[in-house]
Amino acid sequence: MFESAELGHSIEKSVFDQEVPALREALLDAQYDLATARKFPVVILIAGVDGAGKSATVNTLNEWMDPRHILTVGFSEPSDEELERPHMWRFWRQLPPKGKMGIFDGSWYTWPILERAHGRIKDARLDQSLEQIRRFEQMLIDEGALVIKFWMHLSKQSQKKRLKKLEGDPLTRWRVTDRDWKHFAMYDTFREVAERTLRSTSTAEAPWIVVEAADPRYQKPTVGKIVLERLRARLDNPAPRPAVVHAPPPVSSIDGMNILKTLDLSRKLEKVEYEQELEKYQGRLNLLTRHKAFKDHNVVLVFEGADAAGKGGSIRRITQAIDARLCNITPIAAPTEEERAQPYLWRFWRHLPRRGRFAIFDRSWYGRVLVERVEGFCTEADWMRAYGEINDFEDQMARSGTIVAKFWLTISQEEQLRRFTERQESKFKRFKITEEDWRNREKWDAYEAAICDMLDRTSTEIAPWTLVESEDKYYGRIKILKTLCARIEEAL
Amino acid sequence: MFESAELGHSIEKSVFDQEVPALREALLDAQYDLATARKFPVVILIAGVDGAGKSATVNTLNEWMDPRHILTVGFSEPSDEELERPHMWRFWRQLPPKGKMGIFDGSWYTWPILERAHGRIKDARLDQSLEQIRRFEQMLIDEGALVIKFWMHLSKQSQKKRLKKLEGDPLTRWRVTDRDWKHFAMYDTFREVAERTLRSTSTAEAPWIVVEAADPRYQKPTVGKIVLERLRARLDNPAPRPAVVHAPPPVSSIDGMNILKTLDLSRKLEKVEYEQELEKYQGRLNLLTRHKAFKDHNVVLVFEGADAAGKGGSIRRITQAIDARLCNITPIAAPTEEERAQPYLWRFWRHLPRRGRFAIFDRSWYGRVLVERVEGFCTEADWMRAYGEINDFEDQMARSGTIVAKFWLTISQEEQLRRFTERQESKFKRFKITEEDWRNREKWDAYEAAICDMLDRTSTEIAPWTLVESEDKYYGRIKILKTLCARIEEAL
Repeated sequence: MFESAELGHSIEKSVFDQEVPALREALLDAQYDLATARKFPVVILIAGVDGAGKSATVNTLNEWMDPRHILTVGFSEPSDEELERPHMWRFWRQLPPKGKMGIFDGSWYTWPILERAHGRIKDARLDQSLEQIRRFEQMLIDEGALVIKFWMHLSKQSQKKRLKKLEGDPLTRWRVTDRDWKHFAMYDTFREVAERTLRSTSTAEAPWIVVEAADPRYQKPTVGKIVLERLRARLDNPAPRPAVVHAPPPVSSIDGMNILKTLDLSRKLEKVEYEQELEKYQGRLNLLTRHKAFKDHNVVLVFEGADAAGKGGSIRRITQAIDARLCNITPIAAPTEEERAQPYLWRFWRHLPRRGRFAIFDRSWYGRVLVERVEGFCTEADWMRAYGEINDFEDQMARSGTIVAKFWLTISQEEQLRRFTERQESKFKRFKITEEDWRNREKWDAYEAAICDMLDRTSTEIAPWTLVESEDKYYGRIKILKTLCARIEEAL
Repeated sequence: MFESAELGHSIEKSVFDQEVPALREALLDAQYDLATARKFPVVILIAGVDGAGKSATVNTLNEWMDPRHILTVGFSEPSDEELERPHMWRFWRQLPPKGKMGIFDGSWYTWPILERAHGRIKDARLDQSLEQIRRFEQMLIDEGALVIKFWMHLSKQSQKKRLKKLEGDPLTRWRVTDRDWKHFAMYDTFREVAERTLRSTSTAEAPWIVVEAADPRYQKPTVGKIVLERLRARLDNPAPRPAVVHAPPPVSSIDGMNILKTLDLSRKLEKVEYEQELEKYQGRLNLLTRHKAFKDHNVVLVFEGADAAGKGGSIRRITQAIDARLCNITPIAAPTEEERAQPYLWRFWRHLPRRGRFAIFDRSWYGRVLVERVEGFCTEADWMRAYGEINDFEDQMARSGTIVAKFWLTISQEEQLRRFTERQESKFKRFKITEEDWRNREKWDAYEAAICDMLDRTSTEIAPWTLVESEDKYYGRIKILKTLCARIEEAL
């Protein structure tokens, strides 16, 4: 894997001086085309061994191109705000929007490689991390990003030489730390871990490019040329990505039976009983949020359901029981302009709560496989891959200590009609009913199919769906509160 | 000031139960109108003495209204990301956008009051903080926000009673801490500081409303009604705010002389000298960024100037000398949708750097008093008040250890024409010239007047403007680098 990067590649100064100006001009041209088209973002990772000129390369790219269209991102210790979210949050928040380049000095690879090399995790855990990364990068690519990954390589001999040389020059001395020499002593271990990492994360669309780093005059134009080629190729062939469907679309069962139809919508609670239960579970929920152990967790709640199924009312019964300062409600409507320039899930990542807090989503990332699927707002390929991306997203939340609870509120078609009519007639609820609601209602069957697929594919152990019979609002609200309390108790 | 909030106000339960439903309905109605119109944000502060039901009131407002349109913000210890920015950054990042309500439990008042009561600052420093707050709130109001400030008051006697009662109930015991009792012992001091604070920050448009907190049945509907009244009044009278001009527009001097005309544009550097100086100052700049003391500072650079004056090239000469990971360039173009829903300066606040880093603005908040003024994109009142707001903004940066350097790049009309023509003829620079540039050129005189006003009003000791003679690019770039180095050296 590293052999051809130990050949002693080098370039004469005269050749370098002659070729670089044209390369810079072409890079700038491509960069402006990217910014003008604003069709996709470019993610460039600069990884590699210590002393291999990673920062120098990042600086060179900034110098050769227009830095106003580049986001340069370096990662050191995570901040406390980052530590309280899933590991990938800090990367999501730094993704470049469409039309820009993000150059990452350090990346999602840094931590797994370091941890494995130092023996703090085993191969199995490393492989697990790499699998997560592969899926993350696949998502970026599916969302249209151009991902270019460089590994700067030095042979053991050259690394030693390079570190010594850097140390000798007062202008670069600061770059070499004790840590670098400690890492050098572990050269073989690092090489082994790096090889495993590169091998398993080189994919057709995001292959690793290993660059020999012994001679900067070879290294920098190599990186520049590859960036130019890949960027140019993408700009000049803006053909829509083939709508690759990774799996056949789901089929409905031949007997017409589905999980929604098995629900007993006649379940109900009398008002007196409801009020007793409400007090009981709201009290319990409140106590739970003040439990000592709750400080290490946070809660993400997803509310989905047919129009007029009672999402808003159910959410209010929860927020009544929680200190409002600990709770953030995000109603999901059309994405903003900044959100449209990012991968689909970005606008949900940005609302993940810190520890000890609740984030309630009134409609959610499941819009992709519900309304967007049914209304044709996205391609089949887009919503088909969304199931996997969503599971990954929720998995990452769960791993970081988040309690994820998802509620699907069900009502019958008849009950929906009754509520729609009631809303139209009430001055106070008039805002709640729109033309769109009536249109959605006509697509009841298509939605039912989409819902069943969603439940089948995304109800997981770590983030299960709770089906809520909401024909009777009292029954539905209590079921939700009860489930939520049980989920939190289980986690504490 | 607190007398009428010690009268023992209270409401019968039967009256409360009868009146609250109508109040809630009206509040919800108003809230939906707010969300539909999306014309302005509502900022509600809930402040007051300990044990005065501040959190309970916040929760009640969330319960009575639709929490999906409310941002509830509580402030405890600032995070490390917040500590590395100016004090007000944490409030700016939590401001509600147009159409939403932000309910602040704890606010920009918390810190000054606590510090003064504990004797850690003196009256002079308190007054200074309050003056800053007054200006901040005035900015919010000028930007269209409805600001409602509640002070929850308890007499000494009632506070004692309330704390004891809260302690007695297992459901509320957690709310009372040792800190609360310590504060109680300081009741008189707190009262004094609070009175001074309220007195000096009650303005015509954002007066303090003192609410007696002894009886929650009195307290909560009082707050609800005031919110409703103020919101309703604003919604029902959407007449544009009168374009109040706080000061007469600037006049040009009668002899036609101005500071720009005094610049000697014939200054130049030969190429050889330029290259020597470039190396010297880039080296010095690089060393400065690695200075130990630099970790406690950050640098905000503003580049403004006529079109084609060389902003981009000057910025590149700086970024070449800095580790790209420490540097973020923000080119200012049209605001995004999320930015348009916030006060004007919000989109600059969000880009303020952490410690040890650079933020470079290629065009900046000065757009308000330049292009927006000249092209009539904002009202006269808007750009007239911008000078003061900008000075406040930069003052806050400087106080937090930020080195603010602002460069105005000057060229002659003839030189601009030459560069425009050159750009049009060069394939490589074709992106840099647009129809708009030609149009702007026709307004040279109007821009000159705006620039001179800007320099007069915003060149301050803490954030001085440097006028750069850029007729000769070499001379201009070196002057910028030299000035920047001097500013940083001075600060370290």
